[in-house]
Amino acid sequence: MQSPWQLVSGGVTSPQGFQASGIAAGLKPSGKLDMALLLAPEQAVCAGSFTTSVVRAACVDLCAERLAANGGQARAVLINSGQANACTGDRGLIDSQRATQALADQLGLDAEALLICSTGVIGVPIPMPKLLAGLDPLVAALSATGGEAAATAILTTDLVSKQVALEAELGGRRVRIGGIAKGSGMIHPDMATMLGFFSCDAGLDPSIWKAMVGQAVQRSFNAITVDGDTSTNDTVLAFAAGDPLDSVHHAALEQGLTEAMQHLAKAIARDGEGATCLIEVQVEGALDEPSAQRVARTIVGSSLVKTAVHGRDPNWGRIVAAAGRSGVPFDPEQVALWIGPHQLMQSGQPLSFDPEAASRVLRSETVQIRIQLGDGPGNGLAWGCDLSDQYVRINADYTT
Amino acid sequence: MQSPWQLVSGGVTSPQGFQASGIAAGLKPSGKLDMALLLAPEQAVCAGSFTTSVVRAACVDLCAERLAANGGQARAVLINSGQANACTGDRGLIDSQRATQALADQLGLDAEALLICSTGVIGVPIPMPKLLAGLDPLVAALSATGGEAAATAILTTDLVSKQVALEAELGGRRVRIGGIAKGSGMIHPDMATMLGFFSCDAGLDPSIWKAMVGQAVQRSFNAITVDGDTSTNDTVLAFAAGDPLDSVHHAALEQGLTEAMQHLAKAIARDGEGATCLIEVQVEGALDEPSAQRVARTIVGSSLVKTAVHGRDPNWGRIVAAAGRSGVPFDPEQVALWIGPHQLMQSGQPLSFDPEAASRVLRSETVQIRIQLGDGPGNGLAWGCDLSDQYVRINADYTT
Repeated sequence: MQSPWQLVSGGVTSPQGFQASGIAAGLKPSGKLDMALLLAPEQAVCAGSFTTSVVRAACVDLCAERLAANGGQARAVLINSGQANACTGDRGLIDSQRATQALADQLGLDAEALLICSTGVIGVPIPMPKLLAGLDPLVAALSATGGEAAATAILTTDLVSKQVALEAELGGRRVRIGGIAKGSGMIHPDMATMLGFFSCDAGLDPSIWKAMVGQAVQRSFNAITVDGDTSTNDTVLAFAAGDPLDSVHHAALEQGLTEAMQHLAKAIARDGEGATCLIEVQVEGALDEPSAQRVARTIVGSSLVKTAVHGRDPNWGRIVAAAGRSGVPFDPEQVALWIGPHQLMQSGQPLSFDPEAASRVLRSETVQIRIQLGDGPGNGLAWGCDLSDQYVRINADYTT
Repeated sequence: MQSPWQLVSGGVTSPQGFQASGIAAGLKPSGKLDMALLLAPEQAVCAGSFTTSVVRAACVDLCAERLAANGGQARAVLINSGQANACTGDRGLIDSQRATQALADQLGLDAEALLICSTGVIGVPIPMPKLLAGLDPLVAALSATGGEAAATAILTTDLVSKQVALEAELGGRRVRIGGIAKGSGMIHPDMATMLGFFSCDAGLDPSIWKAMVGQAVQRSFNAITVDGDTSTNDTVLAFAAGDPLDSVHHAALEQGLTEAMQHLAKAIARDGEGATCLIEVQVEGALDEPSAQRVARTIVGSSLVKTAVHGRDPNWGRIVAAAGRSGVPFDPEQVALWIGPHQLMQSGQPLSFDPEAASRVLRSETVQIRIQLGDGPGNGLAWGCDLSDQYVRINADYTT
């Protein structure tokens, strides 16, 4: 369907009733903004999506447990950048609890309604006196225009801050979705956790919102890969609060949420350190959507495909080889492949094509690869970036 | 147990009764050796292990089908380098059949007892007149010292040829295992298929041999990763022929076969283009061996671990993050970690260590990483190489 959503300027505080702030509390040695707060209206529902890693930070455990205990309700999330609070043992959980308790006292709320996310160096505890001293100015700075400061305060190795706001008319009323995110690929895994925070000024049942958020995350943040590594702290939290939205508009809302998340997911992939372009892989004709997504992710995650794109080489062999090892069954003799508008394969065999023209397409800011596996109904998308010698230098030279 | 096997000079023709040859037939534009033949004695049994990719070459289908149809018996394998005969449609299978039929006529054997492996550029047919013209000199060159020429003739992008020969006294008789292999990681996936050919001068039941080969491949070639890509043509074939070996020595034979395959698997990982060192990851205390192997492979395949090793950075955070996302459950608070002799983690938390000394260990030709997940019985090994800017340059600059 034609999307009713329009991109508007703004971010996580664009939806009505949401406030945010960002300050420098001295957690980062650089003196940059390093604490953020997002406050949702009363009655807000919240859904989360967390890292699947076995090694996960204390704050991730805390978020998952409180959301489950509260039946998907929460009022605010505190974010600190500088220390990931992962591999910090019992102390990590105690620090997370203390931080949310102190914030609850400041806000006059129940600590159980507050969440916390951390990003930064692994294995280093949060300097708690600095964080606690930061709560007072952080709460004082809360405002309906504070989304931009919050977007900056959650960054670590990112080159640019990432915000999105969408607006639609649904049933005669204006609905907005906002979001901020950080992450520049798992380039410094101990500094580059992926975090995303979303807001929406429509009221929804917690279980319906949770299903929407899960589906939108699957089609956005779970569809990007920079180098295949997953962090200890990856978290997406999405809040919704406002007048209830008629169920006839739920599909449109999910579409908007998906568009907002895809917008920021692509911004993260494009911000991969050393990256010179965004790669979008479109898989068609698979058995189902999960199969198509798996093939798309395998292609966009292949070091060989990524280096070929970096070298502006229309190497169809690497793309089809990556599809072949994805674990998804298909008939190789039905495969068709395009780079941009140029078709390189048909019925599993190479076509003759103009390599110069195809190479020119690979010089775009966004490189589009499309592969048709068969005539099944499953389509899927994935995004990533090219692999440059700059990536290796950044990672090899970075010393813990 | 203490290994009864000793490394001796030689290769795939060291075991008694095996003959091999390698010639230049003009399949490679460079004029280098590009056809090889390995001939096993009468009554030889043969076991194969093949790429798991959905997109696999015609010759792989032919090998798998003939071995199944013959109950694990085969007499010879013909190998051509230059063209992979993958993504070549019906013509690919017809060419493979024609080649083995013509070889069968030369050798006076049944074509069904002959196998064929191809490696080289994907999507390009084998120039059959050249291959057919090469069979006469190839058969004429067969000799008990031809293993070295065969080892050279199967190469594509490898920097060095790879041979191994082991010898043991089992039950009062000398038994030898020999092997040759090619592959320098999936650096040029369309040129760097992994092939391995093994010989043994002990007689075995085909089903027992098949199980041994499967287990040894799992602990060697399936435990190496250069960049995670799997080729369309990856194949290991292992022949055994000679006086029957008493079953009391089967465990020792499997150990020798594993050692021979690990020797060549490590040689392939070390030959990864752009690699400056071999990385060996040892996982202990997992629930079982497959879990331990999976964690080891995830660590050695992580771009972030590979770049950290390249930068000589003892980055324990990247190693434990890779273990965490491997899909294997473990208690993060039990993890202990060593780089060489230096322990970096205990009970899931970082220890203070001398980063200079740890960095020196990372300058070795072989870098050893050891991680203990718990107190389970499962141990596993995996090998790989570091990721250098040279790797990216080679792959980005290579043009199809």
